[in-house]
Amino acid sequence: MALLSPSRRVRRTPFSEGVEAQGIKAYTVYNRMLLPTMFASVEEDYHHLKQAVQVWDVSCERQVQVQGPDALRLIQFLTPRDLGKISPNRCMYVPVTDQGGGMLNDPVLVQAGPETYWISIADSDLLMWVNAVAACNGFDVTVSEPDVSPLGVQGPKSDDLMAQVFGDKVRDLTFFGCDRFKFNGFDFLIARSGYSKQGGFEIYVEGSERGMPLWHALFEAGKPLDVRAGGPNLIERIESGLLSYGNDMTSDNSPLECGLGKFVSASQLGTCFGGRAMREELEAGSAQMIRALEIEGKAVPTCDRAWPLRADGEIVGQVTSATWSPDFATNVAIGMVAATHWNGGRALKVDTPDGPREARVRHGFWN
Amino acid sequence: MALLSPSRRVRRTPFSEGVEAQGIKAYTVYNRMLLPTMFASVEEDYHHLKQAVQVWDVSCERQVQVQGPDALRLIQFLTPRDLGKISPNRCMYVPVTDQGGGMLNDPVLVQAGPETYWISIADSDLLMWVNAVAACNGFDVTVSEPDVSPLGVQGPKSDDLMAQVFGDKVRDLTFFGCDRFKFNGFDFLIARSGYSKQGGFEIYVEGSERGMPLWHALFEAGKPLDVRAGGPNLIERIESGLLSYGNDMTSDNSPLECGLGKFVSASQLGTCFGGRAMREELEAGSAQMIRALEIEGKAVPTCDRAWPLRADGEIVGQVTSATWSPDFATNVAIGMVAATHWNGGRALKVDTPDGPREARVRHGFWN
Repeated sequence: MALLSPSRRVRRTPFSEGVEAQGIKAYTVYNRMLLPTMFASVEEDYHHLKQAVQVWDVSCERQVQVQGPDALRLIQFLTPRDLGKISPNRCMYVPVTDQGGGMLNDPVLVQAGPETYWISIADSDLLMWVNAVAACNGFDVTVSEPDVSPLGVQGPKSDDLMAQVFGDKVRDLTFFGCDRFKFNGFDFLIARSGYSKQGGFEIYVEGSERGMPLWHALFEAGKPLDVRAGGPNLIERIESGLLSYGNDMTSDNSPLECGLGKFVSASQLGTCFGGRAMREELEAGSAQMIRALEIEGKAVPTCDRAWPLRADGEIVGQVTSATWSPDFATNVAIGMVAATHWNGGRALKVDTPDGPREARVRHGFWN
Repeated sequence: MALLSPSRRVRRTPFSEGVEAQGIKAYTVYNRMLLPTMFASVEEDYHHLKQAVQVWDVSCERQVQVQGPDALRLIQFLTPRDLGKISPNRCMYVPVTDQGGGMLNDPVLVQAGPETYWISIADSDLLMWVNAVAACNGFDVTVSEPDVSPLGVQGPKSDDLMAQVFGDKVRDLTFFGCDRFKFNGFDFLIARSGYSKQGGFEIYVEGSERGMPLWHALFEAGKPLDVRAGGPNLIERIESGLLSYGNDMTSDNSPLECGLGKFVSASQLGTCFGGRAMREELEAGSAQMIRALEIEGKAVPTCDRAWPLRADGEIVGQVTSATWSPDFATNVAIGMVAATHWNGGRALKVDTPDGPREARVRHGFWN
C-alpha cells in the first residue's frame, strides 16, 4: 500500500485529532474527506466490531441541506421512492437517479427541522446535482453543505455506550428511527442507523466545535465496554451485504440492478428523474443484479478493480468487492451478475489478479 | 503519513501498472481516482522536474464530454468566459460558477471534434452539474464521462521527448494550442498545457488500451533524457502560482477572488450562472483575493488545513498551500487575503500548527 499525501483538499474532520490519537493506520478518501479504514488491522478491527463497540468518524457522509418551502417537493423529484413517511422521527434510504435512471448516490434522508432536510450522502458530489436542479427549476429552496458531521457508534454494545452519554431513552429508537438527545446542553439529532449490521447509531454533530467534547465523552464512558475507534470494515460490510456506491454500483447501474426495487415506488415514476427508464426496466425485467458470491480457495488478493465473472468462458458479470472472511472461513464477495446466471447456487468462474477461481452465487448475504 | 486503502471506488487508471513499476510512494485521490504525488521524494521529484522531463499520470483530470448541436451553447452558459476563440487548435481555461458566482471547478475546455467538447476537470463532480443543467433546460446534448485519460509530459526536456514519439511538428504547438499527432497509427489529441511551469504537454489518451503502449514508448525514447515518472509537485506548483481547486479555492470563492478576473467577460454576465453576483463584485470591488506569500523561518509543517492570517491580532485571510522551497530558500505559500491587507510587501502573521510565524504578501509568484 502507498501513502496518502495530506492536503487541505482532502479535508480533515472535526474528529481527526481523536482519530490520530487512537493510532490511525489507513484512510480512504470519501467526498474529498478523510475516512478512517484501519486502526489495528482490518481483521482485528472486524473481530472487535462484532464483539464490543466502536466510534466511527464518518464525517465524510456530508449533508446536502435543502431548506425552504419547496424542500420536500424538490427532494421527491430526485428519487423514485415515495417520501410520504418521512418525519422528524423517521429517516429514509433514498436512491437518487439521473434522467436515465442511473444511480447518482444512495443517501439517507433526514428531516432536521421545519422545511429543513439533510441528504446524508455516499461518495459523489450530489450537492452539484441538487443545486443545479433547484437553480434551473425555480424551486424556493436554499441548497448548501452545512457544518454537520456524522459520528457513528457501532457494535453490539452500542446501546449501552449511547445510554451512558445520552440517557436511556436512546435505547427506544427503532431501526431508522431518529430523535434529538441532549449532551452538554445541546440537542443532537441521533438515528439508529450506520454502515454495519452489528447494531448502532449515527449522531449528526452540528458545529465542528461540538465534535471533540462528544468524542472524548464516548471514549471515557466506553472504557468498561472496551470502546475503540473504528470505521466501515471491509469484511463486515461484505458479509452484511452493505453496498458501497463507487464500488458495487455506479451511475451505470439502476436502483433495480442494485437490488433496491423496494425503494422504487410506481407512483413516483411519472415525475422523478429516470422514471421512464425504470418503468421500462420493471416491465422488461433487469438484465443484471447485485448478488452475494462465495469465492473458493485461499484468501483472495485486494479487490481494487472489477474482476470479470465467467460462465463457459463468456463474461456474465463482475465482482466489485471481495475479501477473506475469518468467521465464515471463505472469500465473501459482492458482484453484478447477468439474469441468465444470477440464481442462487450457480457456479461461475472469476478472474482474479492471481488467476481464475471457482465462485458460486449465493441465496443471500452472510450476516 | 497514513496509508491509502485500495478499493475499486478509488479508481485505478490506464497507467497504474506503469506508475507502480516506477516505484510510486504516495498518492492523493482526485475525482475518486489515484493521482501520484511522490516517487523518490517531493524534493527530489521537484529538482528533477526542473531539470529533465517527467511523465505524469493525470488521468484524474477526467473529461466531462458534451456532445450535440447545443454543446457549445450549453457550455457558454456555464462560464463567465467568452468562448468565442475555442477551436480544434485552441483550448481554454474556463472557470465554472454556480448561481451565486462561486467556483464549481476550474477546468480546461477542449474541442475534441465536431459538436464534441471535453471539459477537463479539477477535483469536483462537475458531470453532475452539467448533466442536471442539460436535463432541466432541454439542451440537445449528451453528457458523459468518456474513456479519455490525460497523460502529462512536463519539464524543460518535454519538447525533445515528445518530438521523438510524435514527430517534430509537436514542437510548433503554442501555449494552450492543441492538435492531433500520430502514434501507433492513432491520432492523439495533444495540447501544450499542464500543471507545472516547466513547459510541457498533455496527451488526451482515448481508450484505456492505448495507455500502456504510449507510456512504454515515452520511457523508452526518454532514456537519454533521464525521463522519470512524476506528478504535480507541491513545491513547484506553489512557486509557479498554480492554484489548486479544493486547496486554494472552493465554491465559497468567486473567480475574481481567485485572481481570474481576466477570464470573466462582461458580455457573458447577463446570461451565465452567477453573472449578477460577479457584476456586483466587479462594481463594488472584491473583498479578498489570492496572493503569493512568503513565510519566514525554517520549513513549515505540512499544510493540510487553512492557516489563519492575522494583522494586529485580527484575522485578515488564510494560507491554504505552503511548503519549503529549496531553490528560493524560503517557505512559499498561497493564500486568500482581505483587500485591506493584500498589497505587496504587507507584513502579516500566520498561525501554523507549530505556532505563529512572520509572513509577507508578495508582488507575484516565484517562477
